[in-house]
Amino acid sequence: MKLNCDLGESFGAWSMGLDNEVMPYIDQANIACGFHAGDSLVMQKTLTLAKQCQVSIGAHPSYPDLVGFGRRSMACTQQEIIAMLHYQIAALDGMAQVQGLSLDYVKPHGALYNDMMKKPEVFNSILTAISQYPKKLVLMIQATADFDNYKLQATKLGITLYSEAFADRCYDDNGRLLARTEQDAVLSKEAMLAQVKQLAEQGSVTTISGKILTLNVDSLCVHGDNIEGVQAIREIKDLLR
Amino acid sequence: MKLNCDLGESFGAWSMGLDNEVMPYIDQANIACGFHAGDSLVMQKTLTLAKQCQVSIGAHPSYPDLVGFGRRSMACTQQEIIAMLHYQIAALDGMAQVQGLSLDYVKPHGALYNDMMKKPEVFNSILTAISQYPKKLVLMIQATADFDNYKLQATKLGITLYSEAFADRCYDDNGRLLARTEQDAVLSKEAMLAQVKQLAEQGSVTTISGKILTLNVDSLCVHGDNIEGVQAIREIKDLLR
Amino acid sequence: MKLNCDLGESFGAWSMGLDNEVMPYIDQANIACGFHAGDSLVMQKTLTLAKQCQVSIGAHPSYPDLVGFGRRSMACTQQEIIAMLHYQIAALDGMAQVQGLSLDYVKPHGALYNDMMKKPEVFNSILTAISQYPKKLVLMIQATADFDNYKLQATKLGITLYSEAFADRCYDDNGRLLARTEQDAVLSKEAMLAQVKQLAEQGSVTTISGKILTLNVDSLCVHGDNIEGVQAIREIKDLLR
Amino acid sequence: MKLNCDLGESFGAWSMGLDNEVMPYIDQANIACGFHAGDSLVMQKTLTLAKQCQVSIGAHPSYPDLVGFGRRSMACTQQEIIAMLHYQIAALDGMAQVQGLSLDYVKPHGALYNDMMKKPEVFNSILTAISQYPKKLVLMIQATADFDNYKLQATKLGITLYSEAFADRCYDDNGRLLARTEQDAVLSKEAMLAQVKQLAEQGSVTTISGKILTLNVDSLCVHGDNIEGVQAIREIKDLLR
Repeated sequence: MKLNCDLGESFGAWSMGLDNEVMPYIDQANIACGFHAGDSLVMQKTLTLAKQCQVSIGAHPSYPDLVGFGRRSMACTQQEIIAMLHYQIAALDGMAQVQGLSLDYVKPHGALYNDMMKKPEVFNSILTAISQYPKKLVLMIQATADFDNYKLQATKLGITLYSEAFADRCYDDNGRLLARTEQDAVLSKEAMLAQVKQLAEQGSVTTISGKILTLNVDSLCVHGDNIEGVQAIREIKDLLR
Repeated sequence: MKLNCDLGESFGAWSMGLDNEVMPYIDQANIACGFHAGDSLVMQKTLTLAKQCQVSIGAHPSYPDLVGFGRRSMACTQQEIIAMLHYQIAALDGMAQVQGLSLDYVKPHGALYNDMMKKPEVFNSILTAISQYPKKLVLMIQATADFDNYKLQATKLGITLYSEAFADRCYDDNGRLLARTEQDAVLSKEAMLAQVKQLAEQGSVTTISGKILTLNVDSLCVHGDNIEGVQAIREIKDLLR
Repeated sequence: MKLNCDLGESFGAWSMGLDNEVMPYIDQANIACGFHAGDSLVMQKTLTLAKQCQVSIGAHPSYPDLVGFGRRSMACTQQEIIAMLHYQIAALDGMAQVQGLSLDYVKPHGALYNDMMKKPEVFNSILTAISQYPKKLVLMIQATADFDNYKLQATKLGITLYSEAFADRCYDDNGRLLARTEQDAVLSKEAMLAQVKQLAEQGSVTTISGKILTLNVDSLCVHGDNIEGVQAIREIKDLLR
Repeated sequence: MKLNCDLGESFGAWSMGLDNEVMPYIDQANIACGFHAGDSLVMQKTLTLAKQCQVSIGAHPSYPDLVGFGRRSMACTQQEIIAMLHYQIAALDGMAQVQGLSLDYVKPHGALYNDMMKKPEVFNSILTAISQYPKKLVLMIQATADFDNYKLQATKLGITLYSEAFADRCYDDNGRLLARTEQDAVLSKEAMLAQVKQLAEQGSVTTISGKILTLNVDSLCVHGDNIEGVQAIREIKDLLR
């Protein structure tokens, strides 16, 4: 089970995330592409850091909402989603090639990620965009109870999926995350480490109702926003070793 | 002598330029990359149109100044210029590949173009950006009396140049354009056609002082903003045939 | 019955709308405030034009979506909506005062307008924003069959409403517009003039089902995007005289 | 001698500056207006904080350059500068009034500030913008050896100036700051406190050449970017008491 993390989310004079501290511990860097975060200089630096740490590179495209950090759903058409994905993926892909790197996958960001999991037409737009891209790219989505439905759609378009789980978030019986506004939505550190252990050893999570839910997980999403997050990543890494 | 034109300069709900009318008559399309014009949907449509008309594709990158249409010089560092060029070129390059097209060249837009011709550090940043790009791209600059100086710099970094002249603008003895604010800066249609003829047959322009100035020109920049512009392009095309 | 029109929707180098032709025929100008259209220079020019024509000024605020022209619903919080309204209204209000003009009303734009009519929490956020504003401003909303419900809410917060009807759009029995994608959603010119006449003389529209629906209308929304639109405005003006 | 500080420079998800820690110690808050920093929610929160601490409010307008944080000079026309100032000042002014506050002054930000001090046409545009504004606003500029020249211009347009000095920056004999790239440009804490003391008690600074230069200073610019900055502000405040 790999570790992935959203990185390169600084913008201009604003710094976000402890990228230097996080990069050595993760396997996959989801790099912002300029629409919710990550201007071109930030992208360049983040790619350089990923190269030094030999971390796989994923594009982390978003709705065009800088002030909202891509967290607000926008009623975009399928054509708009396809075009904005091509633009963002291509920008990062080319900048990666400048540094001798190769883009590996795509993980939509924020509201676009949520809409992908909830709205079939958004998922389909994303699959279409990736299938049209001249380079084979994997799509990272959430490991849920109905993951096979997503996989079926993706396979039709010749696209491989990475499934990801969330280390620190509580699951419901459908393998969806409890909303952050709900009680117990975010796990304590101990509960998080227990969830990671269970995912790694048994391929399952224990849901909010106590049910054991099988989740085939390729990658674990971790957060490097602050020192506590970085410390948690280290402990997860130790645990997985 | 080829014809090049700035295209794909619409943005969102705003339309600019008669792209459909112009594309059949030109050889090279300078396509905006989102920083001064051209959102991702516009880029996609412009690439499709270029494909239909079998027109070569150039990236037309700019300073990040949407409201100023890239026409205002910005005091950017060399690192900023290099990164913003990589981003914009890569975005268009990837979107071109989605449609089975191949990016051929780069022509900076507006104030970035002017700064490139005036400020050695800007020209150098642009050369550096292109030399680092994983694909061989030509740089289009202005044909001037001192073109060989630019060429020398470019050659050092392994970059080929396209030289362009302006059909409808009056030249000074240095092969620079008279500022639009000066009298006689913009030629009448007759004078423009005469200038094109002279460029095509004799490889020279007659400057504002009456001097015959040799200019080796690969491409002629034309404008398709309005019906008069499109009509002029047709007449230039006829003349060149 | 007054005529209102969206104006000042140019942006930077991009021109939109025949503002000079429209302004003399309308009573109320809904002026874009920079979030979907209308940079500060455009706002300034539009205010000057409104002053010359002695037209009332309304702020036309939007979700922050320039490339989408404010037409895409965004999942903003109430606090975000209130703050973005204050910002946009204040910007236009101050610029109007620079020219000795006084802002009269607010009419939300595009997706924000649609959300206001559909989502009580959005309507409430808009009312709250206006009630907090230091100057008394009227809110323009759509005249519908359930207009009194909106009025009740507005009155609680001490806000006066302008009700507006759409000259060229077909109504359903709830006094809502048929979606543009539906057949007969947009009226022919003859049908439009007939609808205006009926609104003016009888205070009603004939809905798609043939029902006569009473609508108390303060203002009629007209469009000045093109020459046909301007011609229609003139004929409506003649008819209303 | 008052203390002024740039505040409200967060944007969306990005946090900048220790506003909560700084506000209680300063007299004047220069609040970003959305063009280089400070979205509408941030502006709202910053105004609330200023109100709680009974701090005077200044608009801190900028060139439209979010990714460059307003630090890059842009070749704007006088008309563009005037319109962008009206827009930004009005936006903050109205939002201040929403909270029962009154805007007191304008201090241009970053490159616009530098251009104001260097380019007469920029200074003149700023004076013009403020003179046209419907409310009397003071303009804050740098206290320099030739401050009287600026004052003369301002007085002609009926505008009062605040002069500000920089606590931690070394001065040349013209009362200009040494560029940050130069050695000794930024003072040590001890040197800074000594400079503040000299400004407060003798109305002068000792320049890099050792010359005693008289500077009439209304306000001292301090920085609250980090804990060291906040600590320095406290010591300056103690010293001034």
